[in-house]
Amino acid sequence: MNDSLVIGGTSLESRLVLGTGKFPDRHLIPRVIAESKAQVVTVALRRVNLANPEDNVLSYIPEGVVVMPNTSGARCAEEAVRIARLARAAGCGNWVKIEIVPDQVYLMPDNQETLRATEILVKEGFVVLPYVLPDLVIGRKLQDAGAAAVMPLGAPIGSNRGLKTAELIRMLVEELEVPIIVDAGIGRPSEAAAAMEMGCAAVLVNTAVATAGDPVGMARAFALAVEAGRRAFLAGLGPVREYAEASSPLTGFLAELEQGT
Amino acid sequence: MNDSLVIGGTSLESRLVLGTGKFPDRHLIPRVIAESKAQVVTVALRRVNLANPEDNVLSYIPEGVVVMPNTSGARCAEEAVRIARLARAAGCGNWVKIEIVPDQVYLMPDNQETLRATEILVKEGFVVLPYVLPDLVIGRKLQDAGAAAVMPLGAPIGSNRGLKTAELIRMLVEELEVPIIVDAGIGRPSEAAAAMEMGCAAVLVNTAVATAGDPVGMARAFALAVEAGRRAFLAGLGPVREYAEASSPLTGFLAELEQGT
Amino acid sequence: MNDSLVIGGTSLESRLVLGTGKFPDRHLIPRVIAESKAQVVTVALRRVNLANPEDNVLSYIPEGVVVMPNTSGARCAEEAVRIARLARAAGCGNWVKIEIVPDQVYLMPDNQETLRATEILVKEGFVVLPYVLPDLVIGRKLQDAGAAAVMPLGAPIGSNRGLKTAELIRMLVEELEVPIIVDAGIGRPSEAAAAMEMGCAAVLVNTAVATAGDPVGMARAFALAVEAGRRAFLAGLGPVREYAEASSPLTGFLAELEQGT
Amino acid sequence: MNDSLVIGGTSLESRLVLGTGKFPDRHLIPRVIAESKAQVVTVALRRVNLANPEDNVLSYIPEGVVVMPNTSGARCAEEAVRIARLARAAGCGNWVKIEIVPDQVYLMPDNQETLRATEILVKEGFVVLPYVLPDLVIGRKLQDAGAAAVMPLGAPIGSNRGLKTAELIRMLVEELEVPIIVDAGIGRPSEAAAAMEMGCAAVLVNTAVATAGDPVGMARAFALAVEAGRRAFLAGLGPVREYAEASSPLTGFLAELEQGT
Repeated sequence: MNDSLVIGGTSLESRLVLGTGKFPDRHLIPRVIAESKAQVVTVALRRVNLANPEDNVLSYIPEGVVVMPNTSGARCAEEAVRIARLARAAGCGNWVKIEIVPDQVYLMPDNQETLRATEILVKEGFVVLPYVLPDLVIGRKLQDAGAAAVMPLGAPIGSNRGLKTAELIRMLVEELEVPIIVDAGIGRPSEAAAAMEMGCAAVLVNTAVATAGDPVGMARAFALAVEAGRRAFLAGLGPVREYAEASSPLTGFLAELEQGT
Repeated sequence: MNDSLVIGGTSLESRLVLGTGKFPDRHLIPRVIAESKAQVVTVALRRVNLANPEDNVLSYIPEGVVVMPNTSGARCAEEAVRIARLARAAGCGNWVKIEIVPDQVYLMPDNQETLRATEILVKEGFVVLPYVLPDLVIGRKLQDAGAAAVMPLGAPIGSNRGLKTAELIRMLVEELEVPIIVDAGIGRPSEAAAAMEMGCAAVLVNTAVATAGDPVGMARAFALAVEAGRRAFLAGLGPVREYAEASSPLTGFLAELEQGT
Repeated sequence: MNDSLVIGGTSLESRLVLGTGKFPDRHLIPRVIAESKAQVVTVALRRVNLANPEDNVLSYIPEGVVVMPNTSGARCAEEAVRIARLARAAGCGNWVKIEIVPDQVYLMPDNQETLRATEILVKEGFVVLPYVLPDLVIGRKLQDAGAAAVMPLGAPIGSNRGLKTAELIRMLVEELEVPIIVDAGIGRPSEAAAAMEMGCAAVLVNTAVATAGDPVGMARAFALAVEAGRRAFLAGLGPVREYAEASSPLTGFLAELEQGT
Repeated sequence: MNDSLVIGGTSLESRLVLGTGKFPDRHLIPRVIAESKAQVVTVALRRVNLANPEDNVLSYIPEGVVVMPNTSGARCAEEAVRIARLARAAGCGNWVKIEIVPDQVYLMPDNQETLRATEILVKEGFVVLPYVLPDLVIGRKLQDAGAAAVMPLGAPIGSNRGLKTAELIRMLVEELEVPIIVDAGIGRPSEAAAAMEMGCAAVLVNTAVATAGDPVGMARAFALAVEAGRRAFLAGLGPVREYAEASSPLTGFLAELEQGT
């Protein structure tokens, strides 16, 4: 099956993006990434400690995996832009996930500031993936501004609550041309599969893996689920019916059978 | 991962059971079974035409796959018992899925008659898997009667509506010791994964595969989803939270960063 | 609006049935009943202490309200039958809600035993309202046995979880002719309204009122919600659409307006 | 119960706001308003034809009801501002519901433009009620800008799909101090009640009433449901439990009873 996802000129076979926060032990990260088959991982720039490799999350990311720095900690466009520039200068490449969060209870993103930062960073040559509340109108503006993908949340960051905004994400999938990557909220593999069945291009998972009993096993579960959902989308789901429809014949055939026909 | 499911003394690696009805072309069945990795398939005895191999669904089932005849068409315990005996006599082995459906609109099973048939057939040495409305009290009685598994419906047969009875299935999973296999209603891989995440032992799928645009691709999707859900169950799902919880640090670190610390 | 519900020959204007358990103070019961406008209340026979009026729940039920004893505590048909006879002999009238619960975790009813008790008590002249898991096949048998209504659960007793079995209740509403009264699980007025919108004939509420901050205020809320749902059912709900449909004109009329047309 | 809602200095007893579009016959409107008990109705300025009273929707609105012109048809802040000014100049009072909709498929509002229009119109002395996608960050900005209330959508306009954005609306209710009025999507009284139970201050309904089989009966149903939900909110909902909790005593009391104790 040739079904690559192309973002920023990079062709990806895996449709699972992994976050690197919250792991009980950073030494798990290489195995988690391997089991997840992720080809892109996101890291908070704060965790990129260039002076101390042991404390630097980059040290735990295998060769060949695309690092996507995120701007978490930014509360406005200017801060996000500065973080993105620092990341690039530090050698983290030119991808950036814009995450601008002024709200400290639900960690909801500021869609307006995110759009502003996207406009600036696209012009500076970044591959920009904005994290947003799924808002079709902002989605269109982000696409027009040159975003490489749009990353709507399913539920608050770290909540494991699932696709609570599914109706809004569906609009993005139907109406936009850029890839839609669900980011935040997905708490279990079935939810990742459901996002893919809807036509999302990929999903980003972090908390659900990092807080699982066995993060490595859960990473593998997500890899399988994302592939399952993608294949189902490509295969075409059958129709949902209000009433039952027999899979097997129902009419009384017993007499017939017993007569040896 | 050694995680076999044992039913009737048979050890199964796959937790996906496949139905064989409704396929647009029976010649698809061998490839669908292969892609699904199913080790058990259910067939309506009506479709077992011994006189004509071309018309006999058994001809399309690969060697080594357990055939589980079902009693579809039966409207009471006596009819189900007779069908089960005919199936065994015809060489279909000693597994039987009891399906007793007096209702022609929603195809709801008759739990009482199903219990009666289970009691009779267990005594006759069958490996009995009853298909039921998920009813905890009947579930206990079926277990006491010697059922090899209990097969609750998620939604009406052929409806592709999903796990509409999840709250009731959960009770069976928590309270019974026999394997719980969701049968009927599952319309997409994400729903199969969700059933497995809940702790179900396996799922049976038919319509969702047979009515997919590409049944072979969908069979593969279900195989992956069932494995994903099982692995997630074993790995242990992380907690669901009411509020957000940051994966990445939020405090203003920008000034610090720009000062080169 | 002439829209009475007739059960056992009694014509009821109110479609809210009230339970009398769990109240923090029994002296609240008369006010709760008054605010709820309920014309039928159910009482556990255990609470009918004939020797001590202060301890007898019947002392708190206003004149003119139908008392429907329930058989809670019964674990099989025989026990339920004996409780029903005792209740009638004690002057509680000839209505009886059959509640047979062998399961102590989820308090799930035994549908088979409930059917048996219904068959016996109908023959003895009782107005029988069986409490069941919503099972269409059992529902038909109860109707055939002469049940005055069928009372399916929405969720476990006392859980306030809502209409988790809505898909199964819908089948009863569509396929049976006796009144369907949702009993157990309803935790908030919106859920009572939803049951009525589906075409249920009435709802029984207890825990949601008894455990509310202000039981009297909550009783009034349920009375209003049940009436709202019933009126909506009678008025005919509008169609649900996949996409938007403007309520107001969308085309650019501003130029026109400003030109004074 | 003294429980008024104060908006723009006006004290309202009713928490149901009515829209006036889509009615099959405008002569129904006065009766619908009367049955709904609505004290505020919204009208599209386009429908305000001053030259022809028969064609002017204002002719159908009873004395004493607050008219809230909406800016439907506007695609940007400037258009909304111009419509608001025209409405005030035409004698429609100083309330305005800002509705800016550039999307023609889902009719999703432009939150950014809505914020801009709010800022302008508040300064001009309008009582401004902005219609938005429920976005907590925009909600805070609207509150800071002086919006009299925030009106989040539950689902696309005219879809009757219900509270699909409930998780997002809940954030507004918890975090903002201005009244939250759900506008768009509510298709049935139970959904209106649910919005009120969540703590919303009011709901706006149009399509659900206008497309009902009997709009006058449905208006009454919504009036009751909104009151039910509000009273439930004030009374305090009881806790939701994972498992069952008996309302009635379960222990075997039968022997005791039959011994006459």
